[in-house]
Amino acid sequence: MSIDLIIHSANQVLTLTGDAPKRGANQGELSIIRSGAIAIAGEEIIAVGDTLDLLALADTRTRKIDARGKIVLPGFVDAHTHAVFAGNRANEFEMRLQGASYLDIQKAGGGIMSTVRATRTALIDDLVEQARARLDAMLAHGTTTAEVKTGYGLDTANELKMLNAIATLNANHAMDIVPTFLGAHVVPEEFKGREDAYVDLVVNEMLPTMTNYKHLHRTQVQVLQITNSSLVTRHSPLFCDTFCDDGAFTLLQTRRILTRAKELGFGLRVHADEFANLGAATLAAELGAASADHLMVTRRDEMRAMAQANVVAVLLPGTTFGLGKKDFADGRAFVEENVPVALGSDINPGTCWCESMPFIIALACRYEKLTPAEAIVAATINAAASLGIANQVGSLAPGKLADALIADVPDYRHLAYRFGANPIETVIKRGKIATRMNADERG
Amino acid sequence: MSIDLIIHSANQVLTLTGDAPKRGANQGELSIIRSGAIAIAGEEIIAVGDTLDLLALADTRTRKIDARGKIVLPGFVDAHTHAVFAGNRANEFEMRLQGASYLDIQKAGGGIMSTVRATRTALIDDLVEQARARLDAMLAHGTTTAEVKTGYGLDTANELKMLNAIATLNANHAMDIVPTFLGAHVVPEEFKGREDAYVDLVVNEMLPTMTNYKHLHRTQVQVLQITNSSLVTRHSPLFCDTFCDDGAFTLLQTRRILTRAKELGFGLRVHADEFANLGAATLAAELGAASADHLMVTRRDEMRAMAQANVVAVLLPGTTFGLGKKDFADGRAFVEENVPVALGSDINPGTCWCESMPFIIALACRYEKLTPAEAIVAATINAAASLGIANQVGSLAPGKLADALIADVPDYRHLAYRFGANPIETVIKRGKIATRMNADERG
Repeated sequence: MSIDLIIHSANQVLTLTGDAPKRGANQGELSIIRSGAIAIAGEEIIAVGDTLDLLALADTRTRKIDARGKIVLPGFVDAHTHAVFAGNRANEFEMRLQGASYLDIQKAGGGIMSTVRATRTALIDDLVEQARARLDAMLAHGTTTAEVKTGYGLDTANELKMLNAIATLNANHAMDIVPTFLGAHVVPEEFKGREDAYVDLVVNEMLPTMTNYKHLHRTQVQVLQITNSSLVTRHSPLFCDTFCDDGAFTLLQTRRILTRAKELGFGLRVHADEFANLGAATLAAELGAASADHLMVTRRDEMRAMAQANVVAVLLPGTTFGLGKKDFADGRAFVEENVPVALGSDINPGTCWCESMPFIIALACRYEKLTPAEAIVAATINAAASLGIANQVGSLAPGKLADALIADVPDYRHLAYRFGANPIETVIKRGKIATRMNADERG
Repeated sequence: MSIDLIIHSANQVLTLTGDAPKRGANQGELSIIRSGAIAIAGEEIIAVGDTLDLLALADTRTRKIDARGKIVLPGFVDAHTHAVFAGNRANEFEMRLQGASYLDIQKAGGGIMSTVRATRTALIDDLVEQARARLDAMLAHGTTTAEVKTGYGLDTANELKMLNAIATLNANHAMDIVPTFLGAHVVPEEFKGREDAYVDLVVNEMLPTMTNYKHLHRTQVQVLQITNSSLVTRHSPLFCDTFCDDGAFTLLQTRRILTRAKELGFGLRVHADEFANLGAATLAAELGAASADHLMVTRRDEMRAMAQANVVAVLLPGTTFGLGKKDFADGRAFVEENVPVALGSDINPGTCWCESMPFIIALACRYEKLTPAEAIVAATINAAASLGIANQVGSLAPGKLADALIADVPDYRHLAYRFGANPIETVIKRGKIATRMNADERG
């Protein structure tokens, strides 16, 4: 087989071998190859190893990139995003600086509902174009795969519109996207006082409709004349997520929604314990959810239940930072309790407009007490595991997708040690150079 | 006069009119021009105003940049950096995550002294090359002028080597640099137990030697065949700074050093109240220092003394973040007490490797309770005032240096609302396009 690309002479290649999520003390295992290289053919990694061994595989048409003094690692997997939305909420940001709480803003008719109103009136093309700029920035910061949620439509037609925007981006953007249906993001204003009627709508109409998503996706794709392959259609299930918290959905409502979703074949995720502990982490363990996310106020016994049930803890420190809060999720406790920990940006217009996984890593080390190695594991293989695609992405191994990053730092710890700027110099997505920057062009 | 460049049609041009530092409630005054433009000839701003008015000034050779949907603002002025150093301290970063304190690390022979050892053995060319990469990244994030301190030499020869590295960068790099002598950064290990003898060395040998700096600088410049103009030689005084804190210099030692520096004609800055309150903010007011910096544990009465004496409060939230600490300086209190507030990155290898002023702004709003407008004022005109160059940079006005940024956001609040990525699309430095990025190249 002819090798298309060899990245060689890296100070460190972080392979993160294996397809399983990593837990506890073993999270330190980045499986580093010094003076390492990776060889790529088409969209796949062909070999990972010593530079001299791999350079021997090159032929005349092999492109070579010298990564001397730098590190190579798997593309980041962002386990939790709301990257598709219309408009912005810079106004509310200022309100919040002046003391208004998330729930205050929501009760005042702002918050999520203002994004819902903007998203409902947006055309699908607008949603796609506005999200594309964010995906571009995410890709430039090393995110090669991201989960993206619906949840700003909150009626069947607009949730489908969001899902189609997500599918369109997945088909047209270099990044691979795993979609999640989040019809139960918040009760929309027109259902105020009739919350259970909205849950009925989610359970009885939206969920069954979304199970036709693959069909709809196929037909939409044909209409849009999208021809390239996509991770969604090939590999990943559609996930269902529910925001279980004060001001969102009760534990009982969450149970109804997720139980029905499971019956219909959805993978499960849950927004758990962001503000109040309503028991959602335990529910996630009981239902065998792929992930529970946020987890700001989760108890140790709930962590142990998650560990037992293989529920990945998706921590979202960007949101805590975005809100200017000082109490972050206790990442160390999840590691101690043997829960596999993943990271997500949670990019969204209300609390966290952040495209940078390197920043999330820097934050998780300082305020959630992960080690740099644990944070890198959390941003790659464990995030992939939470999305059910750890056999395809999240580590550098033969047969996996050639999603790899060159970072212009001499050692993996610099990804967390430095912050605020973008350490990622080159992004390889499915074997193609997606972005490449000189130092003075880099953000 | 022929116009070289017009940036036009900006959603907002933030002019920040005036040369004086802004205080208190008036910090909200960004003096915004909607659908605004700036006109540049050579290195200077010629006009600022309405797009149609300014476009009428164009001739056939005027270059035009359309900033539709974006904002234009003055280049950032970074009021406090240690951007020149050798090596890195990623090891200690991991130590600190595991519970070691700044002073623990310092006492263990690491901390600042490990950078001092690396800097002493580095050739001047190495210092320049290592710093250049950081200045490139700072410039890409919009910093067009930065203060840079010595302080990793800690003997006369090596402090001079650092000063020459700073002068070389100022002459060769697009960014303008204001130098500060920080021989009293920490007592070097060879003076352990003889701290006052080191203060003697600073006062009796280093300070008088550094007053010959301009002479040395000129000769060095000739040797290096540097010909272009530089802000240092033309406009700014040499500053003297002292780190007054537990583990560094006592108030008495600080008073000796700064008093002598003042007699010799240095402008004064002081590292005050970062860990312990030793009275350095009050001393800064008494001596008429240009700035007091850090100010984590400053009392209200001290703030009032600073306000009275026109001492600029330089806040450095990146360091608090870098250390993973939760208690930030109380920016709101300084505003309330009418102290002009400036921001700096404090980029340094020990506690804060951060090249991004937009990130510092995002941090200051969330954790030091500045409004977005106050934070922008702090990162431009007030930082310039703290460096004695507010008549040249820090606002957009005819006659000032043409240091301007185009940010790809529709409103100034987005500079703080979004975080982690770089909102700066185009950097104009002294009338020349220093960096220009497409969205997908931006970090």
